[in-house]
Amino acid sequence: MTTHSRATNITWDHGQLTRADRWQSLGLVGATLWFTGLSGSGKSTVAAAVEAALIQRRILSYRLDGDNMRHGLNSNLGFSAEDREENVRRVGEVAKLFADAGLVVLASFISPYRADREKCRRIHDEASLRFFEIYVDASIATCESRDPKGLYRRARAGEIPFFTGVTDPYEAPEKPDLHVIGEQPLGESLRQVLELLEGQGILPKQS
Amino acid sequence: MTTHSRATNITWDHGQLTRADRWQSLGLVGATLWFTGLSGSGKSTVAAAVEAALIQRRILSYRLDGDNMRHGLNSNLGFSAEDREENVRRVGEVAKLFADAGLVVLASFISPYRADREKCRRIHDEASLRFFEIYVDASIATCESRDPKGLYRRARAGEIPFFTGVTDPYEAPEKPDLHVIGEQPLGESLRQVLELLEGQGILPKQS
Repeated sequence: MTTHSRATNITWDHGQLTRADRWQSLGLVGATLWFTGLSGSGKSTVAAAVEAALIQRRILSYRLDGDNMRHGLNSNLGFSAEDREENVRRVGEVAKLFADAGLVVLASFISPYRADREKCRRIHDEASLRFFEIYVDASIATCESRDPKGLYRRARAGEIPFFTGVTDPYEAPEKPDLHVIGEQPLGESLRQVLELLEGQGILPKQS
Repeated sequence: MTTHSRATNITWDHGQLTRADRWQSLGLVGATLWFTGLSGSGKSTVAAAVEAALIQRRILSYRLDGDNMRHGLNSNLGFSAEDREENVRRVGEVAKLFADAGLVVLASFISPYRADREKCRRIHDEASLRFFEIYVDASIATCESRDPKGLYRRARAGEIPFFTGVTDPYEAPEKPDLHVIGEQPLGESLRQVLELLEGQGILPKQS
């Protein structure tokens, strides 16, 4: 598989409405928050808390989640380096569509490779859509002690090939848009993310 | 490629909020309208008119379009039967996510094979989401005389392999949820679609 377009008989169809028309008419501001970190670091937990806070403020948001996506769009992908790359690429493209639609996308994926995350950022950049990388940074010891899905145990037992942090590398973000400590209280992580969104004009400041 | 899950170390993550919570909090009703028909039948034109009408009524909607999708999510797919199947499957999965988010999805794809369209319906059924197949039915003569992208001309010249209606079959829907005549005025097609949406409770009836 390549990421180049193999189709030559296609043209762009912009439709009648521009993105600005749609966003303005419906009071929307689209953007993607990309939560990356080890399995068990708390990515999905933070994303779920952010979702609840956004909906309480009547901001349209949607969560894309590694586990859920693999049951649908990415059900024909495994965990090899090539499949992980395609997995993250597809999610990046879907996140872009949701952001274009005007939603705040909360994408939580281990997404261990720097190049793949950068590709997702580029996909957004090229579409003039905002993308924020949020590094949920918990130590492997923390994650392994939590092990909410029993995956570390299985990985240590050799039952899962290519398990990030055990038998496959995690390339930590060098300059994430936000650095969240995975061991801190959830409320503090939530506050940091909302502050980022307020600072970026995606969320109105609370008075 | 198969559509079966190759991953065994995944679990569902439903998050804190149910779909009903989200829809109710934000006044949303998600559903997918799947426009199928020959190239040039008017699928995208009808979908664009529906989008404008929905946004005017402040109903959140989003268009997924064959051409646009092939530049992004499906840029690594061509036009072989296998790639067309995967193309439609991915769009079906993405439409499902948008419908789950609470948007009215306007998907316009030639989607020539009955089995692929049925798979998209099944994807929605299994997620308890509504899916309406709208057949935009124009004769090949009409489509070829319009030929807005010059594709029929190129297909007849042998420049495009597997071109639906010329060198590849189109399997017309047997029982579409709505049958729209591609030759009729756009306003009439728009009226038919809005009537369907009102009848299904997706759109409030206009007084």
